[in-house]
Amino acid sequence: MNNVITIGREFGSGGREFGRLLAEKLGYEYYDKEIITEIAKKTSLSETYVKQIVEQTPHSLFPITTGNAFAYYGNNHLYNVQSIFREQTNVITEMAKKSDCVIVGRCADYILEDLNPFKIFIYADEKSKIERCLKKVDEPESVNVKKLKRQIKNIDKNRARYYSFYTGKKWGDKLNYDICINTSDIEISEAVSVIEKLFE
Amino acid sequence: MNNVITIGREFGSGGREFGRLLAEKLGYEYYDKEIITEIAKKTSLSETYVKQIVEQTPHSLFPITTGNAFAYYGNNHLYNVQSIFREQTNVITEMAKKSDCVIVGRCADYILEDLNPFKIFIYADEKSKIERCLKKVDEPESVNVKKLKRQIKNIDKNRARYYSFYTGKKWGDKLNYDICINTSDIEISEAVSVIEKLFE
Repeated sequence: MNNVITIGREFGSGGREFGRLLAEKLGYEYYDKEIITEIAKKTSLSETYVKQIVEQTPHSLFPITTGNAFAYYGNNHLYNVQSIFREQTNVITEMAKKSDCVIVGRCADYILEDLNPFKIFIYADEKSKIERCLKKVDEPESVNVKKLKRQIKNIDKNRARYYSFYTGKKWGDKLNYDICINTSDIEISEAVSVIEKLFE
Repeated sequence: MNNVITIGREFGSGGREFGRLLAEKLGYEYYDKEIITEIAKKTSLSETYVKQIVEQTPHSLFPITTGNAFAYYGNNHLYNVQSIFREQTNVITEMAKKSDCVIVGRCADYILEDLNPFKIFIYADEKSKIERCLKKVDEPESVNVKKLKRQIKNIDKNRARYYSFYTGKKWGDKLNYDICINTSDIEISEAVSVIEKLFE
């Protein structure tokens, strides 16, 4: 059985960096945006469209007042959403069965439950998340921090909704993960250097 | 500065065993029930009384209808509660300043905030918590599991109330800890062997 590590993460917590670095240190495959590319290939839909569905909130996936939403997305929308969900499961399962790997996001912890992956959740306090986001932009002083705060909250709210819609569980609830790591005041590499020891 | 590790834990999650084993492996002092003993010494109150206060729910510490409660506990009750709270802070702070140590429970994570302890929370699913509790009794087959479930829930509810009353924060909320470890399907020694590497 392969070693499979899934990573759930709050936006700005450094979860993606954590996953990439962990995979690099362990010599495991790393899957993140690759999942979108694969789903797009298998469904013959555009990557942009797949990404939009996968990062959307459930109520806009299955609108109660279908008229407008379907007009906007086209008649095949519901069919496409279902295909994307099905392929997300297939793609992630295939990846996990192929080799040792780290998979970031996309409900992989839930999809791979039967393969018993090691499930990590990465989180941080608001201050650190803002600082991490600001470090990534060219002109941090020009960023509207209030707006950034709102964006972080919204992205996480969407992740929570999507996770709950897909898995029936609460996103970020400790019980869904083997370990939860607070990256508020630490370097991501520090956290990785501890967790990699679990797989040596 | 000493290395100080604080451990919050759900009842039945193996948190106490985790703390003792971690202290043993690292050669750190271990404080758990010793805190009660020290508070009792400093306040000249009995250990049983101190334990009762420290493990009680806040509403019975500061009753709204004081008449009955004070009659039950005696007139010095409120004064004693305040002394115990004050001494809990003193005792835990002294312990942390004396040497490297592991401190289990008693809001140590909050009390020692300024000393920047490493804060761990140990949790598990209900099934594992019941199994761990049953392993500790001589005749597990004679235990009423339904009642045990209720007891576990009640103990944790009291811990949550006490923590929130004392710290103003939510007990078990990931953000209060550096790392949260799910002990549901693992041996406590496994979890310890990872975390000890952080302090080598």
